[in-house]
Amino acid sequence: MTKPPFVSHEKLLEIVRSHPTPFHLYDEAGIRATARAVNRAFGWNAGYREYFAVKANPNPVLLSMLKEEGCGVDCSSLTELMLAEAAGFRGGEIMFSSNMTPAGEFVYARGLGATINLDDFTHIDFLEACAGIPETVCCRYNPGAFHIGNSIMDGPAESKFGFTRRQLAEGFARLRGKGARAFGLHAFLASNALSEGYYPALARLLFEAAVELRDETGIAVSFINLSGGIGIPYRPGEEACDIELIGESVREAFHDTLAPAGMQDIALCSELGRFMLGPHGCLVASAVHRKDTYRHYIGLDACAADLLRPAMYGAYHHMTVSGKEGLPADHVYDVVGSLCENNDKFAAGRALPEIEPGDLIVIHDTGAHGHSMGYNYNGRLRAAELLLREDGSVARIRRAERPQDYFATLSETECYPRLLALAQRR
Amino acid sequence: MTKPPFVSHEKLLEIVRSHPTPFHLYDEAGIRATARAVNRAFGWNAGYREYFAVKANPNPVLLSMLKEEGCGVDCSSLTELMLAEAAGFRGGEIMFSSNMTPAGEFVYARGLGATINLDDFTHIDFLEACAGIPETVCCRYNPGAFHIGNSIMDGPAESKFGFTRRQLAEGFARLRGKGARAFGLHAFLASNALSEGYYPALARLLFEAAVELRDETGIAVSFINLSGGIGIPYRPGEEACDIELIGESVREAFHDTLAPAGMQDIALCSELGRFMLGPHGCLVASAVHRKDTYRHYIGLDACAADLLRPAMYGAYHHMTVSGKEGLPADHVYDVVGSLCENNDKFAAGRALPEIEPGDLIVIHDTGAHGHSMGYNYNGRLRAAELLLREDGSVARIRRAERPQDYFATLSETECYPRLLALAQRR
Repeated sequence: MTKPPFVSHEKLLEIVRSHPTPFHLYDEAGIRATARAVNRAFGWNAGYREYFAVKANPNPVLLSMLKEEGCGVDCSSLTELMLAEAAGFRGGEIMFSSNMTPAGEFVYARGLGATINLDDFTHIDFLEACAGIPETVCCRYNPGAFHIGNSIMDGPAESKFGFTRRQLAEGFARLRGKGARAFGLHAFLASNALSEGYYPALARLLFEAAVELRDETGIAVSFINLSGGIGIPYRPGEEACDIELIGESVREAFHDTLAPAGMQDIALCSELGRFMLGPHGCLVASAVHRKDTYRHYIGLDACAADLLRPAMYGAYHHMTVSGKEGLPADHVYDVVGSLCENNDKFAAGRALPEIEPGDLIVIHDTGAHGHSMGYNYNGRLRAAELLLREDGSVARIRRAERPQDYFATLSETECYPRLLALAQRR
Repeated sequence: MTKPPFVSHEKLLEIVRSHPTPFHLYDEAGIRATARAVNRAFGWNAGYREYFAVKANPNPVLLSMLKEEGCGVDCSSLTELMLAEAAGFRGGEIMFSSNMTPAGEFVYARGLGATINLDDFTHIDFLEACAGIPETVCCRYNPGAFHIGNSIMDGPAESKFGFTRRQLAEGFARLRGKGARAFGLHAFLASNALSEGYYPALARLLFEAAVELRDETGIAVSFINLSGGIGIPYRPGEEACDIELIGESVREAFHDTLAPAGMQDIALCSELGRFMLGPHGCLVASAVHRKDTYRHYIGLDACAADLLRPAMYGAYHHMTVSGKEGLPADHVYDVVGSLCENNDKFAAGRALPEIEPGDLIVIHDTGAHGHSMGYNYNGRLRAAELLLREDGSVARIRRAERPQDYFATLSETECYPRLLALAQRR
């Protein structure tokens, strides 16, 4: 089963002439197409907006691109709020979905006029004390259990996020008492769900809760935030979710539940990250070493510092040996990085065409939770980010880290001038 | 079972008056005592040197302290070599143990006169081509299988590191043919071994291999590098390794194997990281939120960005509620950070005294693989590092990251001036 990269071998050869590997490469055409498909799928809902989950990829050039497509942003921290602000997002275009939130971040979010999505009942008083209660506020719901048909999804009761059902009713009432006038309801109950049933089931649960809450408290929410969770096909042979079908199924749930309750003015939001960008990025690396011991290894110039998901979750990322797409996958390799950590493995026992040092390796689906999850273990420096524009040109939208960056927080130590001199000599 | 922190509640209260949480705090007295104990335990070997594994904690102030105690450093990357150089390490005081190594790093290590520890047979020609073969060189051995008594340790055959036994003999001969004159032998076969039998068993394996290799190739190694692997008691009730006993057992192996072969001039090296520093660091955080839903949560101002081991490995780190050591542990909490990731949990279902917002939480044993493994997911900024000096004073040896640091690699993007202005306004 094939899973071709979005970039041709010829194009890659051209790119690496001016941009050394490793780098993440993003595909403007793919990003815009997905944003439009998502907006189309939920276009039946007048107030719909996708708030891109910045944590998935906090590059401001990509954020601006999504802004052009009509998206807002979902931020989870101070720096993400700053990125949103610098990229030109304002007020209601910013959702602030955080948890265990420091006071200063609530203050900053309020200053921007962002929509604050409270994670916990106690955050009501905390927010009031540090930043005041805004007119519009959202609460995150954790139903404890969640079923789709006969199957039980990962247990939300085990997760740290959200209000219980009872806290939700009490919370809305408490917020109204403190001056809130417009309410939202949010839940995130599954990650990377490839089932097209997830979003509609979640929507139905939230829609029914909204009706019940109105009946209990007299408070009618004005928006419902379906958050993220729609998955992408990391493995060849997996089917991409049909976003149009998902949008249509959410519409059915909307009409079954909210319309009869006279609540058809509710606006919907989503906070998709992986679905928006995941497939539209790849990590491009060069094979540097070939090693044969008890297994067969290919060593890349990229490592877990550039893509942590395989080391952290054992996640599968598909891999293409650029220019060898037509050759038989008759070699079995562990494709690894240079960390002194045996979990620094992009692929284990992967059938691939024969790889030689110098070959360009495309690691798929790094557009979300790729660069943004990188670390500096072993003193490794994180890779650059490039954007393949719709017109075929390539722009560097993040430079690679330099030793100077890695040493920056040592600025008060005695040996810092020496470190800086060594770094600058490179 | 108690496991007291190295810092008293009174001292912590004093520290947080001038240094806001979260921060890693290191204990100079403990670090020096361990370094001296290690040097004493192997003092019977005239050429012994501990090369501290920089990846465990790349703070140059701590490296300089270890240098004062007679230690060298084990580096795995360009930036670690620069740190070693800036901290004043020279030539043979630096071991370069890397894998899938980029050419530029071999060149840099050669320039420093570091002892290069080759990970693979093919690196011989690679090193020759990029930097030339040095007079002194080490090779890393992977025996495929490793037994201690009747038990089998984690399978080295599954790990990407080292030469096979046959490659080792061929490699030494090949290196000699290319001008190498002094040889070393290295292996790393277990991580965080709490068994006092690990190091002696590893030593015996390497000593026997050294004798065999001399008999086969005529090459007598001049040093043997036992690498790291000696563990620390993360959990209360676990016993710390008796380093004196370990040193004595290695000595017995030495006398059983190398002495009869007339190879008693061999120098020993170690590359301990965790054992040297692990217990002498802690992450100090403040409780910010208390949340009760399906479980009971305490939210800290630290998160996985400051300590990734629990999220990555499910690792246990002991926890003390400072000042409440005497109270009963009659509450059960999940102690979590603020990442939008449910694995951002420092402890799950942990029995602790009742915690209130503002309490200082000491997360133990973060001196190794703590700060150095941090990341910036969710745009979170990594914490500062403080040193508690032997005289009771406290020095900040790494400042906390600032938004400016997080934005540094965006310096070529259009919105960078705005980002910088926002960051500086803070």
